[in-house]
Amino acid sequence: MKILVIGGQGTIGQRVCAAFRQRGHAVVVAGRNSGDVQVDISQPASITAMFTSTGMVDACICTAGTGYYGPFETMTSAMMMPGIEGKLLGQVNLVLLGKTWLQEGGSFTLTSGIAAQHPARNGTCVAMLNGAVNSFVLGAAQELKGQRRINAVSPGLVEDSKDRYGAFFPGYNLVPMDKLVNAYILSTEGAVNGQILKVYS
Amino acid sequence: MKILVIGGQGTIGQRVCAAFRQRGHAVVVAGRNSGDVQVDISQPASITAMFTSTGMVDACICTAGTGYYGPFETMTSAMMMPGIEGKLLGQVNLVLLGKTWLQEGGSFTLTSGIAAQHPARNGTCVAMLNGAVNSFVLGAAQELKGQRRINAVSPGLVEDSKDRYGAFFPGYNLVPMDKLVNAYILSTEGAVNGQILKVYS
Repeated sequence: MKILVIGGQGTIGQRVCAAFRQRGHAVVVAGRNSGDVQVDISQPASITAMFTSTGMVDACICTAGTGYYGPFETMTSAMMMPGIEGKLLGQVNLVLLGKTWLQEGGSFTLTSGIAAQHPARNGTCVAMLNGAVNSFVLGAAQELKGQRRINAVSPGLVEDSKDRYGAFFPGYNLVPMDKLVNAYILSTEGAVNGQILKVYS
Repeated sequence: MKILVIGGQGTIGQRVCAAFRQRGHAVVVAGRNSGDVQVDISQPASITAMFTSTGMVDACICTAGTGYYGPFETMTSAMMMPGIEGKLLGQVNLVLLGKTWLQEGGSFTLTSGIAAQHPARNGTCVAMLNGAVNSFVLGAAQELKGQRRINAVSPGLVEDSKDRYGAFFPGYNLVPMDKLVNAYILSTEGAVNGQILKVYS
């Protein structure tokens, strides 16, 4: 398979790319400032340019996108906009604009997160974004044609993020990277559709 | 209690207002073009003006806001923006801007919908908005201070919308209006916090 991984140089993306390469797939890495092709998913024109560059793909995985973390007391909707334009509408546009670049039988795999169900302190914006991605996937899975599929992987606090983000998630169990990567493999190589693959417990 | 109902002249809002009046509460109706006070929830300045007009309230209920319904094939993120600015960020801003206008022990009740979990055909945008509202409520419920509470009511296809929307929801069970109104009463007069009150089965 030819697999496009957006955010392929991020914490999760690197592991995902390595796993699919090891499984014999051709991986195209898309990143904001690095990778095989550059893309800013918050810009629809940039997404279209990316697909024009890659051509048809068998699978499209997105591990890119983040959102505002900070005190609820002083949060404004303006602070939420970069996350809405990136992690939410960026992933939405990967599907809306990318569906004609996805081979029949191919799959999209988006990334949401545990906050949709169990937000941490200061994480209400990210919760909102993740909940939105999950429900978008439920709708889109019913609408895609030609046996195309879509799922969301919803990671908890992953091992590789422990040093960087662990302090913000007291009491969250660490998710082994192999277990997380397996969810992307299940979504891409399996037959599941419209699933929120929760990788936490 | 002094209860502010935004969207109080809509299909659901009218029933909610009537029920709370019957229960002896003072109801202030806010609407885009009618009611006791006018508000456009997509405009933060309009929300602040509304609360300046009403003064402190014991409860704030929002039944306003809608989102794009239409073919997935041709949907663009631009078509989703009015719903994001209204039903999503409008309700978010009612909380972020309104929390200082809510008495201690008071409650917010937002409205999401069945699409968050069971989207209908053409309803992927609304699914996304509803999922976002639900997860926002989970986060905000942890953050509000002074015993303030927040819940979402998530209605299915309601009886009063049967003629207008029934054709778009084949196989969806009709929800009796009394059952729906009870969820708003539970959220407002009860002690529940951070709940998604699903009024469908």
